[in-house]
Amino acid sequence: MVETMRWEDETLFLLDQTKLPHVITYLSCQDYPDVKKAIQKLVVRGAPAIGAAAAYGLALGMLKSRGVKFNAPTAQEFYHQAQTIAWELSDARPTAVNLSWALNRMLATLKSAVDNAPASLNINDLRSTLLAEAKAIYQEDLEGNKRLGRLGQTLVPAGAKILTHCNAGALATAGYGTALGVVRAAAAAGKKISVFASETRPLLQGARLTTFELLQEEIPVTLITDGMTGFLMARKMVDLVIVGADRIAANGDVANKIGTYNIALGAREHNLPFYVAAPVSTLDLNLNNGQDIPIEERDPYEVTHFVGKKVAPCGVKVWNPAFDLTPGQYITAIITDRGIVHPPYNKEKWQRLTNPSP
Amino acid sequence: MVETMRWEDETLFLLDQTKLPHVITYLSCQDYPDVKKAIQKLVVRGAPAIGAAAAYGLALGMLKSRGVKFNAPTAQEFYHQAQTIAWELSDARPTAVNLSWALNRMLATLKSAVDNAPASLNINDLRSTLLAEAKAIYQEDLEGNKRLGRLGQTLVPAGAKILTHCNAGALATAGYGTALGVVRAAAAAGKKISVFASETRPLLQGARLTTFELLQEEIPVTLITDGMTGFLMARKMVDLVIVGADRIAANGDVANKIGTYNIALGAREHNLPFYVAAPVSTLDLNLNNGQDIPIEERDPYEVTHFVGKKVAPCGVKVWNPAFDLTPGQYITAIITDRGIVHPPYNKEKWQRLTNPSP
Repeated sequence: MVETMRWEDETLFLLDQTKLPHVITYLSCQDYPDVKKAIQKLVVRGAPAIGAAAAYGLALGMLKSRGVKFNAPTAQEFYHQAQTIAWELSDARPTAVNLSWALNRMLATLKSAVDNAPASLNINDLRSTLLAEAKAIYQEDLEGNKRLGRLGQTLVPAGAKILTHCNAGALATAGYGTALGVVRAAAAAGKKISVFASETRPLLQGARLTTFELLQEEIPVTLITDGMTGFLMARKMVDLVIVGADRIAANGDVANKIGTYNIALGAREHNLPFYVAAPVSTLDLNLNNGQDIPIEERDPYEVTHFVGKKVAPCGVKVWNPAFDLTPGQYITAIITDRGIVHPPYNKEKWQRLTNPSP
Repeated sequence: MVETMRWEDETLFLLDQTKLPHVITYLSCQDYPDVKKAIQKLVVRGAPAIGAAAAYGLALGMLKSRGVKFNAPTAQEFYHQAQTIAWELSDARPTAVNLSWALNRMLATLKSAVDNAPASLNINDLRSTLLAEAKAIYQEDLEGNKRLGRLGQTLVPAGAKILTHCNAGALATAGYGTALGVVRAAAAAGKKISVFASETRPLLQGARLTTFELLQEEIPVTLITDGMTGFLMARKMVDLVIVGADRIAANGDVANKIGTYNIALGAREHNLPFYVAAPVSTLDLNLNNGQDIPIEERDPYEVTHFVGKKVAPCGVKVWNPAFDLTPGQYITAIITDRGIVHPPYNKEKWQRLTNPSP
């Protein structure tokens, strides 16, 4: 698989996912505004990948603070500058909670280093601390996904036909993927699974990215449009659904790519398992339910145009939410890197998962 | 509104709907194979419009039989030639029953003229009979839609926000439209309705045609992608659904544009009325239920490409059914040109509607 992002020579290289599947090219980010713009323009997308990119973005910003823009003679001032950059990065996109999760983790690590700093501290040590933490977030996501995949594939019967939506694959994460991590692990276990990928209008992450990943892995994949999911189920052509998540509330309500809810209703109607796969960094236990998850609305241009070609008449009004909400009670299980959780979902259950008592 | 089709100088002019909304141009059909190709390539589409076009196609083919290809010295031979052409036209597309309905009606009228022909019959009189019948089918569809609209709009509350899918408008019919006929009639009744149009991948009839029609009529319309319909309902942004139909079985099962079933499941989940609007020519009482309706599967190219732009990786497999099935029991009412029918739908109820006792 091509790499979603790479750190090299104090530069963050992001695979430009807007150009896939036809062109494989990396965007080099020299400072944090480059990273913010890349997140906004979906050069990098997918909740875990956004989190890792933002962590690198903060590390990058504070490396560049050696230059003209910042002057941080003390560790405390360095910390305040990092807070400012984290604040700027944090509103790049609103829905995926991994963005603020990663930035908060970076700041907490920095705070701890600052609070425990020896008098002889060199500011460059704090820069190294931030970069090491970004690398750890990246690496832990990759390993977490492999663990999630191994756990999740136990839910997948041999020969299963799996429907997935959008791209919750290696490209949406540090690597391996969440929903597609389960698919990869099931394939690796010799289960001879096959996949239906819904194209995921408006930006076609299913058509462009999921099919690309699965063809590379030689896992059989069939492309459909988003309107075909219910009929696919009615025709008994699919056995289960696995999707990713951008934010999960305490009650299991899931914000995920627009179109997910339609699929959940289909799965419910046809008694098919509907699984969500996501690392625990996608949990937002501050929210009791999904109604409070901010849903990003994007440019009408994405809907009125199709890969740069205008398809709708001039002046037509558009509604373009990038995500929707699926109620927790419609989700058969949530597969995380720490374990599989079944309904009813609640705060206590999540806390036992994320902070197991010794 | 622009005309969907026009008969002039022994030529059928079909509005080329594949070029809308940007270019308004008519394809001139000089003989029946032109009409068949136009139906297959979706120059003309929408069940009632296909029926009317096929009727004109048969009339056209038998007008041309004055030329080299056919030689019909007797009325009986003329009828057999018409049967041959009808047979060729009838498999242009499989799902919409209006195609065979219109051709059967044309042949029945011709048969009656042949059987009752005076000895002095001029073969040209049979040609005139066929053309008159095609014109009648066209005209009756137009008038039927207006009646259907007036009936249907009684179901629409003032200020209603209406979701529709694909294009069941003037462009899908001889004029005025079925689902959009109800919308037009409600707007004309001063109900200040507004419409959400789902774009309808793969061929974007919602984005290209429905928005075009409604903008022309100055009826407020908002474009969404097919994946947004459930979330639109969850957010309480829509009050009811009206779609067209390509074939209706005796039990009320409806074949309609792919994506309709997803919307029906959403409407059911959110307790929203789900109406189907179609002329009685869309009924197929030979079928007890929808499982026997042939569902057209179209070229994968429609999904992997758009306006010549490739969007998916080379070699990806595609499933591309053009229609899906919505069970009759999920349909709040079926609005026809002869009256509104409520569940349970059955053959007797339809027969009372289509052949009211004197």
